Amino acid sequence: MKKHNYSAGPCILPQEVFEKSAQAVLNFNNSGLSILEISHRSKDFVAVMEEARALVLELLDLEGKGYQALFLQGGASMEFLRVPYNLLKENGKASYLDTGTWAAGAIKEAKAFGETIVVASSKGENYNHIPKQYEIPADADYFHCTSNNTIFGTQMKDFPNTNIPIVCDMSSDIFSRQLDFSKFDLIYAGAQKNMGPAGVTLVAVKEEILGKTGRAIPNILNYQQHIDKESMYNTPAVFAVYTSLLTLQWLKNLGGIPGIEKINEAKAKLLYTEIDRNPLFIGTAVAEDRSTMNATFLLKDETQAAAFDKLWKDAGISGISGHRSVGGYRASMYNALPLESVQVLVDVMQEFEKTIS
Amino acid sequence: MKKHNYSAGPCILPQEVFEKSAQAVLNFNNSGLSILEISHRSKDFVAVMEEARALVLELLDLEGKGYQALFLQGGASMEFLRVPYNLLKENGKASYLDTGTWAAGAIKEAKAFGETIVVASSKGENYNHIPKQYEIPADADYFHCTSNNTIFGTQMKDFPNTNIPIVCDMSSDIFSRQLDFSKFDLIYAGAQKNMGPAGVTLVAVKEEILGKTGRAIPNILNYQQHIDKESMYNTPAVFAVYTSLLTLQWLKNLGGIPGIEKINEAKAKLLYTEIDRNPLFIGTAVAEDRSTMNATFLLKDETQAAAFDKLWKDAGISGISGHRSVGGYRASMYNALPLESVQVLVDVMQEFEKTIS
Repeated sequence: MKKHNYSAGPCILPQEVFEKSAQAVLNFNNSGLSILEISHRSKDFVAVMEEARALVLELLDLEGKGYQALFLQGGASMEFLRVPYNLLKENGKASYLDTGTWAAGAIKEAKAFGETIVVASSKGENYNHIPKQYEIPADADYFHCTSNNTIFGTQMKDFPNTNIPIVCDMSSDIFSRQLDFSKFDLIYAGAQKNMGPAGVTLVAVKEEILGKTGRAIPNILNYQQHIDKESMYNTPAVFAVYTSLLTLQWLKNLGGIPGIEKINEAKAKLLYTEIDRNPLFIGTAVAEDRSTMNATFLLKDETQAAAFDKLWKDAGISGISGHRSVGGYRASMYNALPLESVQVLVDVMQEFEKTIS
Repeated sequence: MKKHNYSAGPCILPQEVFEKSAQAVLNFNNSGLSILEISHRSKDFVAVMEEARALVLELLDLEGKGYQALFLQGGASMEFLRVPYNLLKENGKASYLDTGTWAAGAIKEAKAFGETIVVASSKGENYNHIPKQYEIPADADYFHCTSNNTIFGTQMKDFPNTNIPIVCDMSSDIFSRQLDFSKFDLIYAGAQKNMGPAGVTLVAVKEEILGKTGRAIPNILNYQQHIDKESMYNTPAVFAVYTSLLTLQWLKNLGGIPGIEKINEAKAKLLYTEIDRNPLFIGTAVAEDRSTMNATFLLKDETQAAAFDKLWKDAGISGISGHRSVGGYRASMYNALPLESVQVLVDVMQEFEKTIS
């Protein structure tokens, strides 16, 4: 039976990516060698890294605008540390928007470095919305936000105007919707949602914001070092970078971000319409802040959970149990999840309504 | 034609590992899902992580001795930073042995943190040997060494006795030879030689040495955080950990480290015997410090290089060009390189001798 994988991340990637990357594990570029055993300095892999870095900037429409794309290791959690190391001045201050668990994690690492101001937080309402009214200190070294909150199913639709650099953790919605990415001075994203397998992190940084802190930066944490070494300061995560390139190529062939955005909007509309229509369910995020990537919802009557769970499991759906912070269900609809899978879930919700009434 | 992959890393892994990991990319554990799309919190992957962590301690004979094994990200270069963050006291000092490019890299990161003493260095002789006569300050917080120097083809055969914690970067010879691993308080190794693909780093640490610096440690760099979260502080490199587990299982089935050590010694003996016998070649490392993993050698007459290069390429050999720091040739004979591949290289060297004379 076909599986409908709603996992929140690591998550579904395009089927053709699985096939091509499995083939590369056996025989990469018809070289007779596995992608796992080739040197990262080999001509074939250098070409992969160069194409991947260029394709990131092309898809984000950041070409020729002073940005560099890097494929680093350590996940978004490592960028929580690299960002203040590279941008927070010795006696400066940072400003952060607290919209969920991961935003809070970024704030925690920054606080160990220096003055860190939280401009607004929705923690008191269990992060069910994105704060809108806040002021960003004009003298802060940067403003940090999280574009999509995987756990709570919220997503920033607008971003503030400010003269200070904007840093955005886009781990769970990068490459999913059209934005003016040049509004951001530094974007980072763990690969394992819309870009590739776990084990590589994308960074797109406007080079001119670097080198201004007066702080000594360890080499491995220094973005400028990684830029100077063309993202090969040390051995990169070869397989994860290659699989990311395959996913980016798939996206380009689909029409890039404008192409996938239409599909993502259709998927989100289909599911949220059912959540709102079906009397047995209720969404947890404030409607205007609902994420197109992660839809969080509850059964109004939790005693019905076992019966509902059996239905979706029988339909081949996996990965929609909610995070413990919210409970209920979380349907993650990343780029590679087909509309057909969302239809299967909606059908299950409607079938469940019939069996209950 | 069969390839003989002498790449210095990433490097050859066992053929059965390529086959099993390619299969897992298509269908992991017969789940109908790819290893690339499953949650790191799924039962199946938690079992992988637990088995991999336990197998590391079993193979190194560190079970029940207070050690924890972790699978982290960032390569050995990230451990160059994590080590002083976790072990170097606020006003303490560290001691390092300088045996090559990577040892020097570790020293550079440590120096940014505090007083760092280099107890000895072979840099003046282009790192062609391991310094033997040196004193380790008894009041240093730890002593750091590099067990095998990939670029220069040297390997530590003995390790100093000291009462302070010993930290060892074993990236290029871990799991290759029998040692009393309990002599070391912290061992780390980038996976991409004897353990798995690039993108994951093994750390085995004696837990009692942690938490003594008085230093605030960023969460992502804090070994104790990773231990407390059972190596899932953040999303691990799922595929790289799984492939490492397959390689560790292969090693266990071969008889563990005692089993592979015999094979590695036979390979090294075969090649070094030929280097010493063949009048056209000369080894670059001092004989007593020669590495069983990386044999570095030169043509006595460099004008013969094109002719020799053609021969080994025609024989299906790849990856034996030397590092620019040493020149000539470097034959890396990691665990998964078959003895047969070494025989092919030796045959080529003998054939070359005949064509020249």
